[in-house]
Amino acid sequence: MSQFSKIGIVSKPDDQHIASTVQSLYQYLSDRSLDIYTDAVSAKLINKAAAKPNSPEEIAKNSNLVIVIGGDGTILHASHSLIQKNIPLLGINLGQLGFLAEINPTEIEKQLGQILAGHYREEKRFVLQASLVRNGKTINTSYAVNDVVVHAMQMVRMIEIETRVNQQHLNTLRADGYIVATPTGSTAYSLSGGGPILHPNINAIVLVPICPHTLSNRPIVIDADSEVEILLPKQNRHTALASIDGQINMDFMPGDTLKIQKAQCVLRLIQPKNYDYFDVLREKLRWSTQPNNTRS
Amino acid sequence: MSQFSKIGIVSKPDDQHIASTVQSLYQYLSDRSLDIYTDAVSAKLINKAAAKPNSPEEIAKNSNLVIVIGGDGTILHASHSLIQKNIPLLGINLGQLGFLAEINPTEIEKQLGQILAGHYREEKRFVLQASLVRNGKTINTSYAVNDVVVHAMQMVRMIEIETRVNQQHLNTLRADGYIVATPTGSTAYSLSGGGPILHPNINAIVLVPICPHTLSNRPIVIDADSEVEILLPKQNRHTALASIDGQINMDFMPGDTLKIQKAQCVLRLIQPKNYDYFDVLREKLRWSTQPNNTRS
Amino acid sequence: MSQFSKIGIVSKPDDQHIASTVQSLYQYLSDRSLDIYTDAVSAKLINKAAAKPNSPEEIAKNSNLVIVIGGDGTILHASHSLIQKNIPLLGINLGQLGFLAEINPTEIEKQLGQILAGHYREEKRFVLQASLVRNGKTINTSYAVNDVVVHAMQMVRMIEIETRVNQQHLNTLRADGYIVATPTGSTAYSLSGGGPILHPNINAIVLVPICPHTLSNRPIVIDADSEVEILLPKQNRHTALASIDGQINMDFMPGDTLKIQKAQCVLRLIQPKNYDYFDVLREKLRWSTQPNNTRS
Amino acid sequence: MSQFSKIGIVSKPDDQHIASTVQSLYQYLSDRSLDIYTDAVSAKLINKAAAKPNSPEEIAKNSNLVIVIGGDGTILHASHSLIQKNIPLLGINLGQLGFLAEINPTEIEKQLGQILAGHYREEKRFVLQASLVRNGKTINTSYAVNDVVVHAMQMVRMIEIETRVNQQHLNTLRADGYIVATPTGSTAYSLSGGGPILHPNINAIVLVPICPHTLSNRPIVIDADSEVEILLPKQNRHTALASIDGQINMDFMPGDTLKIQKAQCVLRLIQPKNYDYFDVLREKLRWSTQPNNTRS
Repeated sequence: MSQFSKIGIVSKPDDQHIASTVQSLYQYLSDRSLDIYTDAVSAKLINKAAAKPNSPEEIAKNSNLVIVIGGDGTILHASHSLIQKNIPLLGINLGQLGFLAEINPTEIEKQLGQILAGHYREEKRFVLQASLVRNGKTINTSYAVNDVVVHAMQMVRMIEIETRVNQQHLNTLRADGYIVATPTGSTAYSLSGGGPILHPNINAIVLVPICPHTLSNRPIVIDADSEVEILLPKQNRHTALASIDGQINMDFMPGDTLKIQKAQCVLRLIQPKNYDYFDVLREKLRWSTQPNNTRS
Repeated sequence: MSQFSKIGIVSKPDDQHIASTVQSLYQYLSDRSLDIYTDAVSAKLINKAAAKPNSPEEIAKNSNLVIVIGGDGTILHASHSLIQKNIPLLGINLGQLGFLAEINPTEIEKQLGQILAGHYREEKRFVLQASLVRNGKTINTSYAVNDVVVHAMQMVRMIEIETRVNQQHLNTLRADGYIVATPTGSTAYSLSGGGPILHPNINAIVLVPICPHTLSNRPIVIDADSEVEILLPKQNRHTALASIDGQINMDFMPGDTLKIQKAQCVLRLIQPKNYDYFDVLREKLRWSTQPNNTRS
Repeated sequence: MSQFSKIGIVSKPDDQHIASTVQSLYQYLSDRSLDIYTDAVSAKLINKAAAKPNSPEEIAKNSNLVIVIGGDGTILHASHSLIQKNIPLLGINLGQLGFLAEINPTEIEKQLGQILAGHYREEKRFVLQASLVRNGKTINTSYAVNDVVVHAMQMVRMIEIETRVNQQHLNTLRADGYIVATPTGSTAYSLSGGGPILHPNINAIVLVPICPHTLSNRPIVIDADSEVEILLPKQNRHTALASIDGQINMDFMPGDTLKIQKAQCVLRLIQPKNYDYFDVLREKLRWSTQPNNTRS
Repeated sequence: MSQFSKIGIVSKPDDQHIASTVQSLYQYLSDRSLDIYTDAVSAKLINKAAAKPNSPEEIAKNSNLVIVIGGDGTILHASHSLIQKNIPLLGINLGQLGFLAEINPTEIEKQLGQILAGHYREEKRFVLQASLVRNGKTINTSYAVNDVVVHAMQMVRMIEIETRVNQQHLNTLRADGYIVATPTGSTAYSLSGGGPILHPNINAIVLVPICPHTLSNRPIVIDADSEVEILLPKQNRHTALASIDGQINMDFMPGDTLKIQKAQCVLRLIQPKNYDYFDVLREKLRWSTQPNNTRS
């Protein structure tokens, strides 16, 4: 009997194209008499009496594997409830490889069969824990799979932010914002901001300034076990924004501090045995495509 | 008699350090029996009965030269009322060279004497005119000395913006925002966003994507006589922000179009005869300083 | 009768895949009784008694249109003899759009018929003239369609180069090299070095430092009518390299000066009526492809 | 008695300005009756009978601390003989802070007194070992403190290089070159090439493409315990260059492989107790200086 006997299904909302994939998956799992917990979106797409809508919390509580059908954004969203319950996640993409959604819908039967039979690898991706401190009180703590971002609220003016690493002053930055990204997040917003790619197996995070005023400000890679504190000094006139994975957004007020450190919990990613990170990188970033400039 | 007989004085607000400079300037001009029009900030710092507070409009209407004491930000702000009246502007910096504020406070007498005696050069910087069109109606028209920027409002998600140049589709961009900068603005926000420096005498503007999703999106320099249209397609769920010189900020709603073209008016900058743009560039960007990395 | 009655054919060397394209083209032109001047490569591929090998000079002298079959590199190479004789050039690509090679081999008949019938547009691309001066004597003058590059010879150490624009000192640069690129060249080496894209119709060139030591050194766009002088000061211990379009390579010795200005001659590009530069840009740089990072 | 009783002195060649610093240092150490081993440059500057010229090997063999007077380049050069003998190194700069040369000449007595009294910290920087393999035979093995670089020899054309990490294909890169840098080297050539800063205490290396043809090629940070292989495939027509710390330069011929892995030995840096890497970073990269663009 499979190690994965209780399967959650989470699907990307508002996308009719995935209906048949979700239905096939449901059928495949039903045929194997596995316990299935579908989220509201999946339940509606499956449209059978047996497929009831479950809340994210119910899914996280009852499943020992959650399969997410969608792009990296859907997986990122689903991961937040899973990391706290230590539930592994398997991503099925929408026909195009993702950094997190690695299984192609056309290969579900083959790949999933292997995985349910125990032939898979599990990758533990570390996660950040960000605490927003105001007037000495922690008013929010969230987990970030990709990144913690501090950003000017309305682009009216740059913000001036001060950063400390393990109690030491790193810099005072005037910029649009500052990104603190995990290796998982290094191929997301951080990459658009000019950050490097961090291989998932290194224990490091990267701090990337967004449109910095001083041109020599560059991304810096530090130990993931560092404690990073980002302060918005009181002289800033405007409230900024603190954003966790682009999904949880909080006011970041002058005087506030954001404390960022490695979380206890991890994101458990289930992958096919032959998974190769570099393959994904080359395909997603189109490194393998033909030359694209005039240079001869 | 000097060509410049009616002098406006505009000063940076909230900066006590400039009081003596403003007072010296006022005394210098009074001694030469020139007509002086001080703004509210300057009047307060001068603190004499003769120095009355004038509105920006009054200053622009009555002066044939406006002297601005402050950094590039203050000059940028002051320029908006002057370009429409075709009044030349002379910038006095706060002790540190600016791209626009070129005269050092310690050299006021020497430099200003020369300029009032007619020994100066005038540089005409072209200016952009941006019209915000909603439902076929132009609801705002503003002049941009530096840049016109479209930006995601709250960084919640990227915006997808469509750009046309002279009615031709340039691109559909997924990014934090898009900067359209003049040569004057090319050393401001655009530079932080990765744009090139445009020499002030070239008739070109640069379009710079901010944190673009597609990594091959690069700044593109086009003819300044182009008509640029930036659209926020209706499928965007969130209102974005249109910002003129970082000073005029407007909602940019799904369905809106921003039409950008060269304005009829120009920014007239008065400069010392020996002004050298490259000198300013080297000093501001610290190109002349010693090497700053380990490379041997 | 067509304006283009004497057609040169130049083909990419060492590429068997283009044989049938060259043969079809030859047949097409022969059927129309046009005078044809084939280069050695084309003559060999056509393999008919009538197709004789002509030198680049003979082709430039006798043709009033030269068709180049190959990629942008082949066209760049062929253009050098044509710009001096003012002969227009038409590029046929190898199945993949080029910045200069715009006609697809599958569309030769249709597109070429139109062009020979007079339905085309001609774009004049300006060209740089670079003179290498040693001990006060000009020892080489070459035309550059893409770029003039000064580069450290063996990467042993950075070079220190001094640049003047219209007799004014621009900067003293410590770097691997310096690129001076035309709009045509802005999508070639310059782009890899971090330069912006310059639209072909702007009268500007861009100076791009390669791996500069000072991080605030950025590409600068200046008027194409400027005279640029690049000097390798005598204190440099090693000879550098001056390269024209990556094809003409000369020793650039300490004490040498490279004088760069707009040439009298131009590159005449024949294009289909519906040619759209932005289309080419989007396709070559893959702006239109799907998103490629995790950001949601 | 001090732990450091046998002191080597190595000085920057061809720099008369350091004579008094070297002499003071020598006097200071002589006064304490320590054994002193001067290199040829130092011996000449000290110009005393007791100060004899020693070879780098003799210095490494006899000293238990080597003090280097010069910039980061001099230290980098000196480090090569020390890492193999496990001898710690202390850098005295030339009046300007270096990444490796941390002690200011004006503070020698104070700082050195502390260090000789045992109040110091020692930082172990890992080092790479690069082996050049030709026809299955290792023909050179060198240690790299900063970086291993593969570079096109004469910039005639890009090189195409293939990279494997732990036997897995990473990419096939068309570029001017490829940099593999340690954290120590991340602030050197790698930074000029667009690489991130790696904090010295992380166990990672960064691979930075130089002027890559494909614009989405980005620096990638991987585990320092990886085995990196760089191949110059046989289809490359030209010999490239393999360079170790910019100091050892070897032909890198088509068919050659460069194997790079962490060395057994380390660079031992002696630092004052209060050494702060972020301080150095801010000062060297001028992060603390005033804003440098027009943005307000």
